[in-house]
Amino acid sequence: MKELDERAARMLLSALFEPGDADLGDLVEAHGAVETVGRLWDGDVPERLRPAGGPTVAYTHDPAWLADGLVGATERCDARVVIPGDPDWPTQVEDLQGLGDPADRHTRPPLCLWVRGSGNLAELTARAVTVTGARAATEYGKHLADDIAAGLAEASWTVVNGGALGIDRAALTGALARGGLSVAVLACGVDAPYPSANRSVFDLVTERGLLVSEWPPGTQVTRSRFWVRNRLVAALSVGTVVIEAAHRSGTRNTARHAAELGRVLMFTPGPVTSSMSAGVHQLARGPWAARLVTRAEEVIADLTVEPEASEPSNARSPLSEVQALLVEVLPRGYIVETDRIAAAADVPAKVAAEQLEHLHRSGWVDRIDGRWRLARSQAPITGPGPAAS
Amino acid sequence: MKELDERAARMLLSALFEPGDADLGDLVEAHGAVETVGRLWDGDVPERLRPAGGPTVAYTHDPAWLADGLVGATERCDARVVIPGDPDWPTQVEDLQGLGDPADRHTRPPLCLWVRGSGNLAELTARAVTVTGARAATEYGKHLADDIAAGLAEASWTVVNGGALGIDRAALTGALARGGLSVAVLACGVDAPYPSANRSVFDLVTERGLLVSEWPPGTQVTRSRFWVRNRLVAALSVGTVVIEAAHRSGTRNTARHAAELGRVLMFTPGPVTSSMSAGVHQLARGPWAARLVTRAEEVIADLTVEPEASEPSNARSPLSEVQALLVEVLPRGYIVETDRIAAAADVPAKVAAEQLEHLHRSGWVDRIDGRWRLARSQAPITGPGPAAS
Repeated sequence: MKELDERAARMLLSALFEPGDADLGDLVEAHGAVETVGRLWDGDVPERLRPAGGPTVAYTHDPAWLADGLVGATERCDARVVIPGDPDWPTQVEDLQGLGDPADRHTRPPLCLWVRGSGNLAELTARAVTVTGARAATEYGKHLADDIAAGLAEASWTVVNGGALGIDRAALTGALARGGLSVAVLACGVDAPYPSANRSVFDLVTERGLLVSEWPPGTQVTRSRFWVRNRLVAALSVGTVVIEAAHRSGTRNTARHAAELGRVLMFTPGPVTSSMSAGVHQLARGPWAARLVTRAEEVIADLTVEPEASEPSNARSPLSEVQALLVEVLPRGYIVETDRIAAAADVPAKVAAEQLEHLHRSGWVDRIDGRWRLARSQAPITGPGPAAS
Repeated sequence: MKELDERAARMLLSALFEPGDADLGDLVEAHGAVETVGRLWDGDVPERLRPAGGPTVAYTHDPAWLADGLVGATERCDARVVIPGDPDWPTQVEDLQGLGDPADRHTRPPLCLWVRGSGNLAELTARAVTVTGARAATEYGKHLADDIAAGLAEASWTVVNGGALGIDRAALTGALARGGLSVAVLACGVDAPYPSANRSVFDLVTERGLLVSEWPPGTQVTRSRFWVRNRLVAALSVGTVVIEAAHRSGTRNTARHAAELGRVLMFTPGPVTSSMSAGVHQLARGPWAARLVTRAEEVIADLTVEPEASEPSNARSPLSEVQALLVEVLPRGYIVETDRIAAAADVPAKVAAEQLEHLHRSGWVDRIDGRWRLARSQAPITGPGPAAS
């Protein structure tokens, strides 16, 4: 029997189970993907993961042979697969670990991601904003999406969303038209992105960014896959801007994920009289402290930390030059390893570790499982002050 | 020489100095209004309060005779004057004490208020919301002002504002058309309310509420009087809703006062593309935590405390029946004396004092100079949650 490697095993598991499965995630964490496949074939897994009614077609075949099929399908559509540890693996998606209701099975990061297009997913999403909203958007909403995405593109931010009609499409084209980078995260295989009405946009995304999916080529969208996909849309970026949403909508699901991940949640206001603005105004009154934004500059201001602009605080000591540098390179909302921060700031890892420890004690950064995140209270969320009177 | 009483002395001082003067306020606090008048006539006052270049016409007349003239002018326009201690004195305006920049001379509550119309000012403003905004409002803004004021009127809230054209007028007529009560706070005498284009609205306000002014009859508006008036507009109500404001505008001045007074500051969103919404969106991004509202029910929710709706918190003990009652009668944003809270809750003053002390320790109320205010964090500012996923 041909040996499976970690990548092929993760692809195979992604084809057999819906993404984020908590029970499967526990097995992979404990034993690795290769041994998990072995256990599955031996039936040595929790009841829930076993096929109902005896072995299915899948389990009667050699797993390596099945994985070969997936590799072939991936190559045929010019896609590739990234897994944790790869240089282009977007480590921020690991924030999905444990996210969600305990009753929700989709509480684990992806096992692997299919990507199709140009560029490196980790680099593309190092400065990325999700711009999303209603499919049944108004002209006003689409104009705003275009305008904000254009401003983000001009400031070299990547625009991320699910590639849906309406706001998603307007944001992607707004960014692409200004030569910006974009990422569309699909709820189906990257071979046939849904919806096909957006095919021309997906072709441009492939040239100037990536199509991304947790599902292997050939997978069709389902209602529940949209919901599962939304958590990845929120996790890949440092913040989510919601432009138009009806009173109850899938966009609110993405917004909830963004907030729960500690990402910056933003919305654009609209006329109270527009049903397509009802959902965004609800976000403003919800528990997530969604920020009102009206243009790209405000989005960027909410995502960017400017230590020198912070209010002086008695509780907080002034920053040394190195500390200011570390705070500056720490992207808001992401949880980042010491080494990555050190590399970005061009500071020896040992110095970075020491100074991050200091910053932690003075309230500038949070420590989460040995990694670091900018403290929420630190972000200079101050808009223009009152007109001088 | 005829004796001046406290009311006549306060009227006279209001005619001689612009409202809120800090130096004059200090004298009145220390000596009372009657003795302050005596000292003024004797020149026994700080340099700043003395007329430049020797005695003016005013100081060559008997103060009681001058006051008589003011009483006559007040009677001729069917107005009356309320002073602190009167049953219809709105004690919440005393929150203006010390408000404002130290460089700002208008840092004292009014010495007295001219009122014209029906009703008792204290009662009218016990449940009052300021609904204000741009004079050059759009049809959208005026529609919203009408709609929100109507909803407030139907829920028996008094609508307060400066009686300006545009949003103010739409809010007043919106309330009046539904039989609601309203208060227009003027920057001129109540005998000839400005602007005269709103005369028919002011006539209705007089029937179904009050015209209010810090200036005696015959006083004309000036630019600076609008700014001084705005602080009273904010102080009289428990919260301010801003509906449309240009980028820099007087409305933002009212909003700032509301926030600094600890009143609830709210705004209605509008199209990002409308210059008349630029100012309200700025409020949302400003330092005052302005709340987005889209209809009267949301305004009322933000102004009303429902202890049972609060999130359980480890740090906070559950409320006893009496405590819940005290919290319920404490109007959000106002600073209120123990006796008034006890009366409103129909609880003995001693019990109220004890239980407010408990509530203070558990974080429900703030104590300010021996009076009480609902703690900001206590207000149940939770809108509708996310759509169930």
